[in-house]
Amino acid sequence: MLKVAVIGSGNVAQHLIRAFKNSAHVQLVQAWARHPEKLGNILPAERITNDMAKLVGADIYVIAVTDDAIAEVSESLPFEGRLVVHTSGSVTMGQLDCKNHRGVFYPLQTFSKSRKIDFGKVPLCLECEREADYEVLEQLAGAISPLLYRIDSKQRQALHVAAVFVSNFTNHLYAVGNNICDESGISFDILKPLIQETAAKVQELAPLQAQTGPAVRHDNTTIEKHLKFLTDDNQKTLYKLLTQSIQRAHGQKL
Amino acid sequence: MLKVAVIGSGNVAQHLIRAFKNSAHVQLVQAWARHPEKLGNILPAERITNDMAKLVGADIYVIAVTDDAIAEVSESLPFEGRLVVHTSGSVTMGQLDCKNHRGVFYPLQTFSKSRKIDFGKVPLCLECEREADYEVLEQLAGAISPLLYRIDSKQRQALHVAAVFVSNFTNHLYAVGNNICDESGISFDILKPLIQETAAKVQELAPLQAQTGPAVRHDNTTIEKHLKFLTDDNQKTLYKLLTQSIQRAHGQKL
Repeated sequence: MLKVAVIGSGNVAQHLIRAFKNSAHVQLVQAWARHPEKLGNILPAERITNDMAKLVGADIYVIAVTDDAIAEVSESLPFEGRLVVHTSGSVTMGQLDCKNHRGVFYPLQTFSKSRKIDFGKVPLCLECEREADYEVLEQLAGAISPLLYRIDSKQRQALHVAAVFVSNFTNHLYAVGNNICDESGISFDILKPLIQETAAKVQELAPLQAQTGPAVRHDNTTIEKHLKFLTDDNQKTLYKLLTQSIQRAHGQKL
Repeated sequence: MLKVAVIGSGNVAQHLIRAFKNSAHVQLVQAWARHPEKLGNILPAERITNDMAKLVGADIYVIAVTDDAIAEVSESLPFEGRLVVHTSGSVTMGQLDCKNHRGVFYPLQTFSKSRKIDFGKVPLCLECEREADYEVLEQLAGAISPLLYRIDSKQRQALHVAAVFVSNFTNHLYAVGNNICDESGISFDILKPLIQETAAKVQELAPLQAQTGPAVRHDNTTIEKHLKFLTDDNQKTLYKLLTQSIQRAHGQKL
């Protein structure tokens, strides 16, 4: 069975450790953490180390640390010629120390400590330097998810930017909606089914086809009413810019 | 049993007609449509009219036409003193002709012709002029959804603006993400689980708590990389403005 070690103890590391631990197809041999207590409730003490020199043999080492620390951690590994991957969406494969065989294992999902993740629905974006390693990477990924994509460093950069738009920025628009509700004494709960349906729609329809609302209809009466309603300058600016952007995206159709 | 008539044949009218028809608790007595053929596959011909003078008696008349047409349609009704409601998020109750008892029946959801809607999950925002009518309105709404909210015209305006942010603008961000994927030869499918999870998260967590990504982390290295990656000026502007807006919203926490 494939042996894997995880380096790191943050959000992504913890979710991955749980997923590997629960998989019948890989063996999580060890985790490295600067502060081993962070993994105390996930792994038995004997499978956690904070000493790089004590890392045991594995078929693949998964570095799940902050972007800034990836290069340094990969340099400090006390072995050579093994398969080492990172999990970042925005760091190139080349930032891993070249003394080992390099790769990337990027789970494209938003991870919160307080939410369980069903890895079976998480797309895993894989890349590796040596063709021979791809099979190992695929075997590791396939042990926790059926959604495997071969993505090079340049494409991963694009994906990461796209993910910021569809997830981080989208969540911020939810926050704006929540804020507007609060100010009018309305429960944010009323918007929740709409949020769900908007996300569900684009699972089937292309977003361009799914677009509704005053902007795409060029309904200036409603747009003017909304701008008059908004008193926060920042919200007004966002409203105008997103309205223009929708109208530009649909320009060729008009 | 409560008798309801629907005035209109567009998207919302069609979804409502289906929902009322399928409910065991109300009787859809008639629909009025300028072009009756638009309802031909939903209702039998004898229950559709295009002649206002032929509208039969009902406990409640639901005007589901475009915002601009609501006032005119309500004026042209050939009776007085009955309960008449519109379904718009952005039109005040006062725009209905005062010869009838006025109210609003606003389903807060995004309706597409091509998608079935489960009305059991659609919040219905209710308002009426006369207290005595609220029970009737509630009975009608309760026949198709358990999610009933009493919302006045001013609050409905706020809700409508908030809905534009969380749905129309969000969908546009999906379109931007789709566009970025297309340009790098990546399937938009990879982003779909992330879109679902982002929407699912705020069903439980407040959006401010759910915020992740480079903006809220003040991760300038990643932000700079992303801005360098984006070549479209409009996308760059959106990225900068949304990043600033996130940082402003989280300002007090830093």
